[in-house]
Amino acid sequence: MIRSALKKVVVIGGGTGNFVVLSGLKKYPLDLTAIVSMADDGGSTGILRDELGVLPPGDVRQCLVALSNSSRLLRSLMNYRFENGGLGGHSFGNLLLSALEKVTGSFEKAVEEAGKILYIKGKVIPVTTHQTRLKMILNSLKILEGEREIYLSDEIEKGYLSITLEPYPKVNPRVLEEIGSADLLVVGPGGLHTSLIPNLLVEGVCDAIRKSGARKVFVVNLMNRKGQTTHFKASDYLRELVRFLGEDPFDHILINSEKPPKALIDVYSAEGTLVENDLEDGRAVLADMLGGLQGEAKKDLMKRSLIRHDSKKLAQELMKIVDHL
Amino acid sequence: MIRSALKKVVVIGGGTGNFVVLSGLKKYPLDLTAIVSMADDGGSTGILRDELGVLPPGDVRQCLVALSNSSRLLRSLMNYRFENGGLGGHSFGNLLLSALEKVTGSFEKAVEEAGKILYIKGKVIPVTTHQTRLKMILNSLKILEGEREIYLSDEIEKGYLSITLEPYPKVNPRVLEEIGSADLLVVGPGGLHTSLIPNLLVEGVCDAIRKSGARKVFVVNLMNRKGQTTHFKASDYLRELVRFLGEDPFDHILINSEKPPKALIDVYSAEGTLVENDLEDGRAVLADMLGGLQGEAKKDLMKRSLIRHDSKKLAQELMKIVDHL
Repeated sequence: MIRSALKKVVVIGGGTGNFVVLSGLKKYPLDLTAIVSMADDGGSTGILRDELGVLPPGDVRQCLVALSNSSRLLRSLMNYRFENGGLGGHSFGNLLLSALEKVTGSFEKAVEEAGKILYIKGKVIPVTTHQTRLKMILNSLKILEGEREIYLSDEIEKGYLSITLEPYPKVNPRVLEEIGSADLLVVGPGGLHTSLIPNLLVEGVCDAIRKSGARKVFVVNLMNRKGQTTHFKASDYLRELVRFLGEDPFDHILINSEKPPKALIDVYSAEGTLVENDLEDGRAVLADMLGGLQGEAKKDLMKRSLIRHDSKKLAQELMKIVDHL
Repeated sequence: MIRSALKKVVVIGGGTGNFVVLSGLKKYPLDLTAIVSMADDGGSTGILRDELGVLPPGDVRQCLVALSNSSRLLRSLMNYRFENGGLGGHSFGNLLLSALEKVTGSFEKAVEEAGKILYIKGKVIPVTTHQTRLKMILNSLKILEGEREIYLSDEIEKGYLSITLEPYPKVNPRVLEEIGSADLLVVGPGGLHTSLIPNLLVEGVCDAIRKSGARKVFVVNLMNRKGQTTHFKASDYLRELVRFLGEDPFDHILINSEKPPKALIDVYSAEGTLVENDLEDGRAVLADMLGGLQGEAKKDLMKRSLIRHDSKKLAQELMKIVDHL
């Protein structure tokens, strides 16, 4: 079997977490693949799903922008949000993906074509190409319908009975190939219930991860989300993933070691607290991966997370692992 | 002065007329420029003007698609119209131009960037980059506000007192350069009051056309528009243009000689009759330029004009003139 000389890195997630990992890794000579959650149903993406019946473009858009080698202008265009009228709130990139899906008749083809327009490095692959919605039943028996409701809930910390995708979606077969042939698998960072777990709920994905010969890394979030992962430590995140994965497949757990300035923690305190490390096995890698607020990612990310990973530092830590493969 | 070895052809118009001329001329080794009317305010374009305050993208979009050397898919994407919800009726290309205008802060820059994405051959230049609206005062003293109202009126045949752009727009200086350095100027075909005259109403355009050393061609429409140019003959179209141009600058008048099948004329009869030639000077060039309903132009054009010029045949006639320059 002929293999590319480049190491194959497969990143699993969705949302801004994926954006940060991919933006950082893009600078290195790697064979990069982003596997993207398809459970988003909020904002512009939710409206497009409801009104046009398309698959959710938002998370894919962010990955495409992260991997794009096109002009800064074209990348800004993709994230541009219309402000008024019937278009208000829609990001242009979402409209591009939805229009391409309509014209080509296939979301995957749409992603491929958008990738060409944006000169992306690597591949962006939706975890499934079937319409599906996230559903969570809380311990209180309250039912949360859709990713948006789950994202906004502050009752998840009290525990939940189940989280599922409905209807139970078939996996995109390319996802299994990519995971199977990866040298390094990166899970996270990202919303635990809204970006990471939704990938694991797709048929066959957990099995593929367990069986893959790839080195496996879990990048732990910097911050907890109040009402959801309140006071979670690194081991709590890991336990939640293992609940779906069936076993703990991770070789390395990347955990940020640098505390943000107290002023920033205070600003953030309404949303959540810092994730602390409580893992004592040799897998925990503690390193400064804390991001500042600068660069082009700023505009799109800062509204959602004031405290976030630095894409460069995170990529450097991941590359230390790749270099030893 | 160093001039390109290619002949410079400048096409003045807007709408589907421009699309047909440019699609045909694109195949030839020419230095091509489209000067585009900016008076459109109907449909998707009108909504974007009203809701976002952008300049009208519709006519420019058609020219970009006509000159595009990108994939068929990308060209279809530009003309794709969303069908439902808040996006309903918007063509994707209009949204691209409007988002680019917002991101770059300049409509001209937006056109340039869209041109790069679409690998266009030649240049597309808005006749003005100022917001302006068409206004017509009929003999009855009724006022028609905006291109859309004028387009839909069936009272224009009774005569009008004035047609103006308000506010009176400054010309895009590049337009004067292009007209001044052209080898061939092509005016028409296109809606007389809604695509052709709106270019002539912009400050300096008529003067530039008169003074240009270019050979000048007027391509007469195939069909009259009932209530507007009812029973117009070639000389009537010419007279209308000369009313704005101040003098008759045309060296050649291209007139279609081929009658469409009677069945098609009957279908069309609610909209208007065939334009007949009544010019007896040596400038009239009669030739078969009648289009069939086929090819990729079909989808976007057939709704608007069942009987239209064939882009190939029209380009062949124009190239006969170019070859003798």
